[in-house]
Amino acid sequence: MSVLREDDILAQLAAVLEARKAATADASYVAKLYAKGLDAILKKVGEEATETVLAAKDGDPEHLVYEVADLWFHTLVLLAHQGLGPEAVLTELQRRFGLSGLAEKAARGGER
Amino acid sequence: MSVLREDDILAQLAAVLEARKAATADASYVAKLYAKGLDAILKKVGEEATETVLAAKDGDPEHLVYEVADLWFHTLVLLAHQGLGPEAVLTELQRRFGLSGLAEKAARGGER
Amino acid sequence: MSVLREDDILAQLAAVLEARKAATADASYVAKLYAKGLDAILKKVGEEATETVLAAKDGDPEHLVYEVADLWFHTLVLLAHQGLGPEAVLTELQRRFGLSGLAEKAARGGER
Amino acid sequence: MSVLREDDILAQLAAVLEARKAATADASYVAKLYAKGLDAILKKVGEEATETVLAAKDGDPEHLVYEVADLWFHTLVLLAHQGLGPEAVLTELQRRFGLSGLAEKAARGGER
Repeated sequence: MSVLREDDILAQLAAVLEARKAATADASYVAKLYAKGLDAILKKVGEEATETVLAAKDGDPEHLVYEVADLWFHTLVLLAHQGLGPEAVLTELQRRFGLSGLAEKAARGGER
Repeated sequence: MSVLREDDILAQLAAVLEARKAATADASYVAKLYAKGLDAILKKVGEEATETVLAAKDGDPEHLVYEVADLWFHTLVLLAHQGLGPEAVLTELQRRFGLSGLAEKAARGGER
Repeated sequence: MSVLREDDILAQLAAVLEARKAATADASYVAKLYAKGLDAILKKVGEEATETVLAAKDGDPEHLVYEVADLWFHTLVLLAHQGLGPEAVLTELQRRFGLSGLAEKAARGGER
Repeated sequence: MSVLREDDILAQLAAVLEARKAATADASYVAKLYAKGLDAILKKVGEEATETVLAAKDGDPEHLVYEVADLWFHTLVLLAHQGLGPEAVLTELQRRFGLSGLAEKAARGGER
């Protein structure tokens, strides 16, 4: 049914981000970002997109992976701030590309 | 060992993107983007980041999920264009946040 | 008094942009952008910023000038759409950097 | 002949930016940016574009003018870093929109 298993990296990370909502602002980078609010998170999304562009132009694969991780991470913070999670995004990608879900896979013989 | 199972949405999508590399430019949106080259892909990454910001400011959750999906999708196209995949990004996130991998989970009792 | 003379390029361009507000949407690129509304204009600002970054990374001066012109142009469209103009931006830059205005210059000896 | 007079705000600002090239990195914000190099300047261009989008969405004219000034300012730093100036951008806008230059104006009767 779900597109994420609970031990998937994105699911674990979403759980971490959810837990950070209860933290005080000085406790962590994420709690600080939540405290600063939506615009601060969106500025980070914009920044990381630009840094992804710069890393790609430099042609350094390690740097590119690092910046895409930063970009995905801040979109996950954004989603969490809005009460959403990676599940919704993956479901949208699944729908768009006609990809199969876990339940369907399982129903077709349980191969994992 | 891996952070992605082969039936994970991101793994399926990466496989689709890899397959599109063999397609002719008029066959699909992705093949067209590949044919246009790196700058065209990076322009899309920049565009989708701005659209994510706009959707978030409008406070429409469905629209936000749609735009984040667009943003992730175009970063996956970028990764594929550079011979990379979501696995590398998830591994970086895992490392950064000290998240457990599938193999470790399995070793700790095989719960899935 | 003013930071712009009426024959300055930015002043002339602002007048053109103001006049386009009266045009029908199919009459010009700018009228079309106005008709599409704020988000469409902001998407263009984001796009042109990314294209400026790409041109700068390529190190092609002509291309860079072209893209910065595109970026300034779309910020002027944005300002006009919000009932503002380049005068306000130049006044802010003048204030910030302690630059002299035309009136002060004139008072100091009228050199133009 | 020129599209900028030497007492125009943009011309004055370009002269300031040129002078900052001789300054040591700790002497000013601009000298620091130059010292950090092209990517640091481009990150600022990307950041200010996002902040312009956010300010416009908030509908606060003063904030919007402030952010557009920030964006123009950092594109001027970028141009200066690349040995270019606002003159080139204004000439491109003039060409594109068929605007008259100062010399032509003068020739048509010298009104200033």
